[in-house]
Amino acid sequence: MIKITFLPDKKNIEVNEGTTILEALKRVGINIDTPCGGKGICGKCKVLVVEGITAASIEKEFLSEEEIKKGFRLACQTKIFQDTIIEIPSKIRLDFKKVFSSNLKGDINRIKNNFSLSTNVKKVFLDLKKPSLDDQRSDWGRIKDGLSPKKIENISNLKISVEILKKIPILIRRANFKITVTLYNNEIIDIEKGDTTKSSYGIAFDIGTTTVAGYLVDLNTGEELSAIAKTNLQNIHGDDVISRIEFTQKRKENLEILQREIVNILNEIIKEIVQQAGVNINNIYKITIAGNTCMHHLLLGFNPSYIAPSPYIPVIKESLNLKAKDIPRLVLEPTANVFMLPNISAFVGADIVGGILSTSMWREDKTVLFVDLGTNGEIVLGSRERLWTCSAAAGPAFEGAHISTGMRATGGAIDKVKIVNKFIAYRVIKDVKARGICGSGLVDLIAELLKLGLINKSGKLIDREECKPELSEEIRKRIIKGPKGNKFLLVKGKETESGNPIFLTQKDIREVQLAKAAIYAGIKILLKEVNISPEDIQEILLAGAFGNFIDKESAIRIGLIPDLPLEKIFSVGNAAGRGAEIVLLSEKTRKICERISKDIKYIELSSRADFQEEFIKAMSF
Amino acid sequence: MIKITFLPDKKNIEVNEGTTILEALKRVGINIDTPCGGKGICGKCKVLVVEGITAASIEKEFLSEEEIKKGFRLACQTKIFQDTIIEIPSKIRLDFKKVFSSNLKGDINRIKNNFSLSTNVKKVFLDLKKPSLDDQRSDWGRIKDGLSPKKIENISNLKISVEILKKIPILIRRANFKITVTLYNNEIIDIEKGDTTKSSYGIAFDIGTTTVAGYLVDLNTGEELSAIAKTNLQNIHGDDVISRIEFTQKRKENLEILQREIVNILNEIIKEIVQQAGVNINNIYKITIAGNTCMHHLLLGFNPSYIAPSPYIPVIKESLNLKAKDIPRLVLEPTANVFMLPNISAFVGADIVGGILSTSMWREDKTVLFVDLGTNGEIVLGSRERLWTCSAAAGPAFEGAHISTGMRATGGAIDKVKIVNKFIAYRVIKDVKARGICGSGLVDLIAELLKLGLINKSGKLIDREECKPELSEEIRKRIIKGPKGNKFLLVKGKETESGNPIFLTQKDIREVQLAKAAIYAGIKILLKEVNISPEDIQEILLAGAFGNFIDKESAIRIGLIPDLPLEKIFSVGNAAGRGAEIVLLSEKTRKICERISKDIKYIELSSRADFQEEFIKAMSF
Repeated sequence: MIKITFLPDKKNIEVNEGTTILEALKRVGINIDTPCGGKGICGKCKVLVVEGITAASIEKEFLSEEEIKKGFRLACQTKIFQDTIIEIPSKIRLDFKKVFSSNLKGDINRIKNNFSLSTNVKKVFLDLKKPSLDDQRSDWGRIKDGLSPKKIENISNLKISVEILKKIPILIRRANFKITVTLYNNEIIDIEKGDTTKSSYGIAFDIGTTTVAGYLVDLNTGEELSAIAKTNLQNIHGDDVISRIEFTQKRKENLEILQREIVNILNEIIKEIVQQAGVNINNIYKITIAGNTCMHHLLLGFNPSYIAPSPYIPVIKESLNLKAKDIPRLVLEPTANVFMLPNISAFVGADIVGGILSTSMWREDKTVLFVDLGTNGEIVLGSRERLWTCSAAAGPAFEGAHISTGMRATGGAIDKVKIVNKFIAYRVIKDVKARGICGSGLVDLIAELLKLGLINKSGKLIDREECKPELSEEIRKRIIKGPKGNKFLLVKGKETESGNPIFLTQKDIREVQLAKAAIYAGIKILLKEVNISPEDIQEILLAGAFGNFIDKESAIRIGLIPDLPLEKIFSVGNAAGRGAEIVLLSEKTRKICERISKDIKYIELSSRADFQEEFIKAMSF
Repeated sequence: MIKITFLPDKKNIEVNEGTTILEALKRVGINIDTPCGGKGICGKCKVLVVEGITAASIEKEFLSEEEIKKGFRLACQTKIFQDTIIEIPSKIRLDFKKVFSSNLKGDINRIKNNFSLSTNVKKVFLDLKKPSLDDQRSDWGRIKDGLSPKKIENISNLKISVEILKKIPILIRRANFKITVTLYNNEIIDIEKGDTTKSSYGIAFDIGTTTVAGYLVDLNTGEELSAIAKTNLQNIHGDDVISRIEFTQKRKENLEILQREIVNILNEIIKEIVQQAGVNINNIYKITIAGNTCMHHLLLGFNPSYIAPSPYIPVIKESLNLKAKDIPRLVLEPTANVFMLPNISAFVGADIVGGILSTSMWREDKTVLFVDLGTNGEIVLGSRERLWTCSAAAGPAFEGAHISTGMRATGGAIDKVKIVNKFIAYRVIKDVKARGICGSGLVDLIAELLKLGLINKSGKLIDREECKPELSEEIRKRIIKGPKGNKFLLVKGKETESGNPIFLTQKDIREVQLAKAAIYAGIKILLKEVNISPEDIQEILLAGAFGNFIDKESAIRIGLIPDLPLEKIFSVGNAAGRGAEIVLLSEKTRKICERISKDIKYIELSSRADFQEEFIKAMSF
């Protein structure tokens, strides 16, 4: 065992040799910002090794030589083999004040919300008089009287549920009439033995088609205590929302199956996250949920059948203020508050409302373009004056589907590509042998080939002979003729896991063209609606996992987004999850979400005659 | 088959020979007032046989000779054997206006409520525009917009539950967007296909320890459509609330057993009552429940453990505004409203609040004494100025328990006794051979024996030799000496079902003394509190089944109630059930109930030093 000391906290921990700094930090209870989840691909978790020797490796990609010399290392990649003292820079530490009210998360500094902490959850400790023949107040009457001097708003109209009343008689006597009452607005949602006023928590969820993320926060301080993301296990029924909807239509019980699956994931996240943070699950008093419209409907057991076919009708768009008991099998106390952020339309969901909220674009003077890139690209354009939105069916190319060697952005996926002179440099997630290419790698590769002229404006991968004379032979000979057009050799068989080479085919390029054309045409339609040109956009925000990892320059080069100076383009990460967290911590933002959902102008692309035209125009590079 | 025609409706029905008029009336859908439930013991269901011959029998007890000659008969007792025309006098017909707002029910004319019909349930038919690409409103948004011109209060704040939202997408399309929306206050509680605005119902319940009664009413008209009473099957766990509470304490699951049993009875009543009235169970939109505090707690699954021991603390006294889904396994739609009338104390429950409401004593200038006679005698005294209440533990003598040949007031029970000269006249319920004696018979018998001097002031059944000389030998020789005091032969063995004689023993008299002393001492304590004497009472109301059948003169003679002129004493029947019905139909009375429960002064007899003294005084006759 070796000892690590963290500064400035002076917290010590003993760990096994070879433990990473990030693991040690988690165990000692210090949370730092790890946008990439500790994969070594974002370079954000920079800590200073004050005493003790650690080797630098991947750091060279992210840190300057001088920084490395000073002792800066990436916490997620650095393993410790001797007693070490490490300083954690305050700017990467996660606590409420920073995460929530300042521009912290590296590139995602567009998340600059200044919302006051107002959770509407209040815990009050009461030391009550015991009953006697002279004082025959009911148990509830006694508690109510105890609360009355405690400055509770609207106390004359206090509500209490059957669930809580059931607990009371035994509980207050076991507690010797010393209890903590938890109120949410003017409703009693919990009564506990003794003084538990310090334990008050909530979880914000973002339910995506692919990934479900949960963020545990302390409702007393606003601090984020823990975050967990898990795969949405519904993916066995199809990768996208359309296939999930089709699944519900096959048999009556399938809707319940999908509902149960989402609830199971939420339950797993809840159980793990409270364990991680050492929090009592019964002290989770509220959760907020942002998700796309289909996930929203499936979670609540609403039939999503009319989302998919034209005219694309959801059951409800408004936000819903529920209790945990409204969602069958959810592991929370039945009285816990569940707030579902509002949707905008069948294909622009509560996740986008969360994104608009957390990026502050609803109150910006600037004209901002927000793009959440996925199977559906949700696009928002506008300023505080007015917002417009649409959903463009990009297809699954950016998720790696329909691509010859495409894959999701997981271990073995090539997620970055650069071609310098005769060399092709690529990065593989988890630093293993390459298995395939994911969306951001694909965009990089096509951008590089465009730059070198190997792909022409129409998207054709040219013949070797057509290449510019200055192109190196090594690159040129990677173009291989085939019956269905040319293909480009990215990785040779000896460098891949399977032993098979990784190619980019002409068909792959066509798939990317279709995807980017859909997004760009959507952007163009919104620009027309707002009556501005691309140059009038003052800021572009890229949301979602793909939006977080995509190379901005490559995205511009392939024509996925308008050509803006790079410093005006920001990756905002999980803006939806952050939105759900804001709503959890700042209750007044519920109304803001409702207003965003109501006031935004939704443009139905399928009813626009000019969409096809813009789409075809956007196909070329 | 024979034909019966009812006037003035001119309704015809074909029935088997031997069918009673009451049965025929039920089947033809004419409701009449039958306070005794058709047992032939109240004489209220007087109808006129216009054509056709029917024999008169029991009628002689209730009708004048002239009436019988004219053709008046009791509907419940008269069987029809030929084609007959019968006129139903309007004053015995049950419809909303009469039952609800006038003094109809014979002796129970103290129920004179003039409440306006305001159920807060509103059904609205909507013929909605179908969705299209130009009109992508959500299903719920479409419905909400459809409601907005319909003059609904607080429409901007409309609420809808997950249950209803789940139904919407399939339902509105099957209904071709022609739907009926049901609102309760500003919440959507039902959506149905087509126009169902005419179908809107509610049920009022009185949950007693022994009997559970349900009253089905039309919420559009206020008409009572049907009434059903059933035995509370919890009685297998004990006859009184104390034994039920003890049962819950034996094993953890017993509380749930008792809860399930009450819910089962409610479910049976609901299913039968809707079938009887030909009503769809899904159109039951609200129910109200009056019951004693223990039944209230058991229904909701509240632990009643602290009701029974001193200092007698209920979980809650306030009214509760719930949904059907808050009561597990209740067969109603989960969104149906459930209103629990408020309690007053551990032993003065919501049934008494219902009684105070329905008898109007809360708004009377007169000083009224209300006594609900049962195992616990609940007593209320006062006027609109102020009300006082207490609960006196009478014990089960009036229910026939602890009495040598005692029984409940069911078939075979002697419920009336008169001694005239040498004859003893008695009436047996259902006109079968006597099996025992019930409370009202017991009170009659003791009153008669007191009148004849066979029981002295101290309650002693005197020896034959001590009898007054003018007493007939036939009566005198019914006094029989025994080792534990004398006993009085009421029915000879040859006249009883079992062949064993029915006696009144000295111990039986002592039991009745204890019971009546408890009630009377309770009344005395209240009189002291109010600082008035018995003569100041201007009206006495006797509630409950026993209170309905007891002979007032006998009750006064044995000293159960103060000696008031008979015309100032009224039996008010199931005042609790009637109260629940008023609350169902007139929503503003919910607040009145709350105020009654809050403002009434509860006197805890067990903490009164003078109770024992009054009790001992009240023991003698």
